[in-house]
Amino acid sequence: MSEQRKTLIGKRVPRLDAHAKVTGTARYTGDLSLPGMLYGVMVRSPVAHAHIKHIDVSKARAFPGVKCIITGNDVPAIRYGNWRLVPELQDETVLAHDCVRFIGDEVAAVAAIDEATARKAAELIDVEYEPLPAVFNVDDAMAEGAPTLHSHRENNLSLERKIDYGDLEKAFAEADYIREDTFTTHAVSHAYMEPCVALAQADADGRITLWTSTQTPYYVQCLLAQTMELRENDVRVIKPHVGGGFGGKMELRPWEFCAAWMARETGQPVKFTLTRAEEFASGRRRHPVKITSKIGFKKDGSITGKEVIAHLDGGAYNGMGPTATFLIGNFGAMLYRVPAYRYRGNYIYTNNPPAGAMRGFGAPQALFAGETQMNLAADALGIDPIELRLKNAMVEGDKIPGVATIGSCGFIECLEKVRELSNWDERQADARPGEGLGIACYSFISGGVFNWFNTQYTFSAAEVRVFDDGTAQLSTLAADIGQGSDLILVQILAEELGLEVSDIRLVTGDTATCPQSDLGTWGSRVTLMAGNAVRDAAHKVKEQLFDMVSLKLNLNVIHEIECGNGHIYPKSKPAHGLPFGDVVAMVQRSNRGKPLKATGYYTPRDCGLVSPAFSFGAQVADTSVDLETGMVQVNKMFTVHDCGTELNPMAVEGQLEGSIQMSLGYALSEELLMEEGKTLNTSFLDYKVPVAEDMPPSVSETIETYEETGPFGAKEAGEGLACPTAPAIADAVRKATGLCCKDLPITSDKIRSYLSGD
Amino acid sequence: MSEQRKTLIGKRVPRLDAHAKVTGTARYTGDLSLPGMLYGVMVRSPVAHAHIKHIDVSKARAFPGVKCIITGNDVPAIRYGNWRLVPELQDETVLAHDCVRFIGDEVAAVAAIDEATARKAAELIDVEYEPLPAVFNVDDAMAEGAPTLHSHRENNLSLERKIDYGDLEKAFAEADYIREDTFTTHAVSHAYMEPCVALAQADADGRITLWTSTQTPYYVQCLLAQTMELRENDVRVIKPHVGGGFGGKMELRPWEFCAAWMARETGQPVKFTLTRAEEFASGRRRHPVKITSKIGFKKDGSITGKEVIAHLDGGAYNGMGPTATFLIGNFGAMLYRVPAYRYRGNYIYTNNPPAGAMRGFGAPQALFAGETQMNLAADALGIDPIELRLKNAMVEGDKIPGVATIGSCGFIECLEKVRELSNWDERQADARPGEGLGIACYSFISGGVFNWFNTQYTFSAAEVRVFDDGTAQLSTLAADIGQGSDLILVQILAEELGLEVSDIRLVTGDTATCPQSDLGTWGSRVTLMAGNAVRDAAHKVKEQLFDMVSLKLNLNVIHEIECGNGHIYPKSKPAHGLPFGDVVAMVQRSNRGKPLKATGYYTPRDCGLVSPAFSFGAQVADTSVDLETGMVQVNKMFTVHDCGTELNPMAVEGQLEGSIQMSLGYALSEELLMEEGKTLNTSFLDYKVPVAEDMPPSVSETIETYEETGPFGAKEAGEGLACPTAPAIADAVRKATGLCCKDLPITSDKIRSYLSGD
Repeated sequence: MSEQRKTLIGKRVPRLDAHAKVTGTARYTGDLSLPGMLYGVMVRSPVAHAHIKHIDVSKARAFPGVKCIITGNDVPAIRYGNWRLVPELQDETVLAHDCVRFIGDEVAAVAAIDEATARKAAELIDVEYEPLPAVFNVDDAMAEGAPTLHSHRENNLSLERKIDYGDLEKAFAEADYIREDTFTTHAVSHAYMEPCVALAQADADGRITLWTSTQTPYYVQCLLAQTMELRENDVRVIKPHVGGGFGGKMELRPWEFCAAWMARETGQPVKFTLTRAEEFASGRRRHPVKITSKIGFKKDGSITGKEVIAHLDGGAYNGMGPTATFLIGNFGAMLYRVPAYRYRGNYIYTNNPPAGAMRGFGAPQALFAGETQMNLAADALGIDPIELRLKNAMVEGDKIPGVATIGSCGFIECLEKVRELSNWDERQADARPGEGLGIACYSFISGGVFNWFNTQYTFSAAEVRVFDDGTAQLSTLAADIGQGSDLILVQILAEELGLEVSDIRLVTGDTATCPQSDLGTWGSRVTLMAGNAVRDAAHKVKEQLFDMVSLKLNLNVIHEIECGNGHIYPKSKPAHGLPFGDVVAMVQRSNRGKPLKATGYYTPRDCGLVSPAFSFGAQVADTSVDLETGMVQVNKMFTVHDCGTELNPMAVEGQLEGSIQMSLGYALSEELLMEEGKTLNTSFLDYKVPVAEDMPPSVSETIETYEETGPFGAKEAGEGLACPTAPAIADAVRKATGLCCKDLPITSDKIRSYLSGD
Repeated sequence: MSEQRKTLIGKRVPRLDAHAKVTGTARYTGDLSLPGMLYGVMVRSPVAHAHIKHIDVSKARAFPGVKCIITGNDVPAIRYGNWRLVPELQDETVLAHDCVRFIGDEVAAVAAIDEATARKAAELIDVEYEPLPAVFNVDDAMAEGAPTLHSHRENNLSLERKIDYGDLEKAFAEADYIREDTFTTHAVSHAYMEPCVALAQADADGRITLWTSTQTPYYVQCLLAQTMELRENDVRVIKPHVGGGFGGKMELRPWEFCAAWMARETGQPVKFTLTRAEEFASGRRRHPVKITSKIGFKKDGSITGKEVIAHLDGGAYNGMGPTATFLIGNFGAMLYRVPAYRYRGNYIYTNNPPAGAMRGFGAPQALFAGETQMNLAADALGIDPIELRLKNAMVEGDKIPGVATIGSCGFIECLEKVRELSNWDERQADARPGEGLGIACYSFISGGVFNWFNTQYTFSAAEVRVFDDGTAQLSTLAADIGQGSDLILVQILAEELGLEVSDIRLVTGDTATCPQSDLGTWGSRVTLMAGNAVRDAAHKVKEQLFDMVSLKLNLNVIHEIECGNGHIYPKSKPAHGLPFGDVVAMVQRSNRGKPLKATGYYTPRDCGLVSPAFSFGAQVADTSVDLETGMVQVNKMFTVHDCGTELNPMAVEGQLEGSIQMSLGYALSEELLMEEGKTLNTSFLDYKVPVAEDMPPSVSETIETYEETGPFGAKEAGEGLACPTAPAIADAVRKATGLCCKDLPITSDKIRSYLSGD
């Protein structure tokens, strides 16, 4: 072994599941079928707010082929939700009891021998509703005398989140320039390609195995056990391939419960497959938020203080709303040093379909407001917006009082680089009507520190087994939902062990066989947290391997030993190594046949209340607007971002491309159109997701920093990038047209209307 | 917790899989289906011995719907077999290379879009055979100038096994009575209800997942990897429910290889399902053996010495034959103290379908000879056969030189009890023509000590996880193939943890997720070996739980702590316990979220060359023979046996009933009828397995001993019981008719022929 130690860090390693996905052999929950399987459909409320007076299922039950029907009366009225830490925030039951609160609220479920039969039977269920007054926006919901959705929350205020630091009165008093703006953002759908599917089987003792399209197998296990009054270990959740989640599949969902409950009732497996229309009409969506932001500056551009007041339209239930309320406050004061800050986040119930987590989780809304306001302030102050940002940019070591300390931070480098890449200065000097270069920035968390799920386990865990054939096995409940985290974790393990990616077998997605536990995929946590757990396990295994090499090679104790190129060797004498598998065999023999394995863990500690690490980035949108039609064309996107060490540049690029695509839709074309709580556009024909030909060319670079808390220095690249695109386009449109669009999306209608002076 | 500690040992706990099996929801390999699955069939040799001159697959390949065809030329010519310890005993290739050696030898395999297509295509494969002379019995195979099956084994003698101890010349010289008899036993089929099925899937990297009906997932993993030139960890074997094995499913089988190979070739899953005719015609079977046994006695009945010469008709390949050759020698000198012993076991190749392991694994043949001879000797010596046995019976502490030391032994009590139960003395005095009471005994191993598979792992392993909901999970690769070992292992764990069986979730049958490793199901090893591994894991977990209870209850260090009734408590103060789940939660918290789990192991050491423990038993068959027709009717079976602690009497009874059923067939009705290497009776119409109405009433008792090496004192109850029935019936038939039948089966033809003096 004379060649240099090969590293996998920074290598463009292709995805593990690429072949299976392009050849169609990857198995999603919908591909699964069990003998005797029944088909389930949900019966949903057609009204936005009502008492349920009576449900008559007799006709449906008599319909040939129907095997089981359940309503809220048939199942325990247990309130559940991800916020187990604050039980009063758990406000949902799996099926409506007494009351429905949105159009689509789950009232009953039918299982039958085929889907057509189940649908027909569902239509035969007669629900007598007594309509109640309803509210469909935050203002109406908070108005005096507004109808109340949940009896324990008068005024429909579910949650108020406060952040206060610094002397804000003084900050505004000392400011040379203060501005206040109000922004509104809209509801959009995750529009994942794979709709929700769940398949449950019960054994004779009532234990459940649930295959489901989920980001969070562990949450589903716990909450399904809770709602079914089972013990956690009586529920086994298996996550097959998942075709996207983006935050929309991180809660227990009623059809998961209904599949399991009806499987137990009937003794037959039950599968639910949501239709696309159901997904659009009643699925979780990004919170519409009204944000009023007030910010003060000194003449030189330095920020003196900021106040953000947010009202989230939560829809009928909390879902992940409390976390979004929390994070909007956090992202309201990220990126820039804000000496004094006040945040008031209000989570408001309305009779809209409940919102939930969605890629960015509050940051897209907060940063649309914050970054747009920065651009407006820069104009007003007569300072170049990049200069204004550089003036206030966070740097390593900055503290957000009581919240977090900024670790690695390449923000300044990102700003400088994107200025260069986009020819910013030149283009600013050469402004033309109908054209604009807009800028916005982001910062994002690399996993959440706060334990709202109140898990009793470490945040991530990974088991590593090594074999005498020179291979290893990684087992973890960390959930790849299409983002490619499986590969990243395998890459991390291969790097640690000095093996190839092809030497690692991955076993994942099963609460029974993977080590307890992993909090799942959200908040860009997997690479950092599960990655650290993988490293911990690898280190434990390596300790035994290294001890054996020390023995076999008779090494002086001062030698450092390392793994590389399939060997284990003294670092100073790489040619004197032993093959990896041979060392495993020796350790195994020295343990008299016991296999060599270890479980590693990670829980973030002593790193504030938000996240162990923050990514940063800046994006410039080169945009044209047709001044007649108002059509916006993004010509090119320039992105420079700091995700710490780029473990796999191809994976990072994939995240960037996906973020641009999704955010382009958020900025310009996507919007769930609502009328009295009813979602009007429930198909991909009516809900306009950007497709391949809509994608602008993209130029990007990464600023590599080394994040001490992350594996091999890595931090997130999956969600933060979804934030700057909308405000950057808004900035560009403003420059191209003069329209300062503070309410998303930036439609051609709004532009035309502005240009025509209406 | 005032009531007494509840124990599960000795309780009639029902089977875990009972409900699933009787309702049809238990999933066997044949129930599995994957998208895009192909169907495979084997192409087999129609001739018993030939060179393959040419194989033309062109017509078959062109047949519409055919996706893949392989012959021996397409795959590596790697010899494999379970005897990895002695590589030259590995004599089989997955598909024939150059030569076929039995009718049914696997020549090629076809995978097509459905089974009918595959069968049609298989018929289109044109194999040109150049016939070679063949041999179909041991005498012909050993004759001067006999055709040779394997070039490295002239005279077709694959293996010679020798055992020698004591001075045999002197022993025979000192004997007052010597007799020599020759016995022959016949080929029978395992006749498991589930035929062999294998389903393989390959991933893009060529890694294999194989679902298969097997007793030994670990062997299949290793040997499939070897034959495919993959690494062990590139093969994952999953064992769904298995509908019986009895030794017939403990090797890698050609269709497992072909499914995997063709899945990799085609990128589509491939499934093979053997027909019943294939199973009978070319499946493994019990070795036909010719045994010549010479034994000397003193006048008082004490044995002076014994010589056993066995010739096994191995068929075309070794399979598990070497082990059977070894064990026949062992069982030739079990049960009784034999001061001098010589054994010569000869494993002979013939052009019959290969034999293999089958319930008892040499013992049914050895004990048919040995026990029949004991009965004949008793008559000749004028000593009651039970008295003769009592005179020589092994007792605890007896040593078989260089081979084993007898641990717990209730043999004498078994003999005395069966005498009493069967009214032996009274009935002997009252003999009538056409009626007979016959006796035979057995001893059997509780798992094998010898490591012929040359595993690098411990013999058994088990992982135990405990949860704060008061439950536990057991994970082991120990293979339940219908014998009920899953329940026994769960029962052992529940007993250790003081929980209920319903508190334990079992995860099993998957080489990737179960701990490495377990040698599988054979030699009645599971209860003792996997049971000990379960206990080891449980003890490791309990140590942490007990430490926590000591802390929480502030216990004086001299307190013994135990688990019971779902609690953990000081043994002296059972009422002062803490709930099991609460203690788990505390340990977990004290580990800052790390789950509480442990892996346990077991490898038999320092217990000779055969087994850590031996079961014993005696059986009396009350039998009538119709002196006109020769029809044998077993009126009642009396069985008394020592299986150590009866962990679950219902499970033991099930084994006894199954053993009687199978041995009744072996004794009287089952026989694979052969003509020049061709099996003539290949359906259940022609191969006569006793059915429910053939079963005699049964009276049984167990003599409980405490086996120090076994879990809670247990030893085997699954195979030894299959041995005494044939010799006991033979003894009864002799008493009823005078015919001393030394060649199995005891057919009515043979009896009529004897009675008519032909």
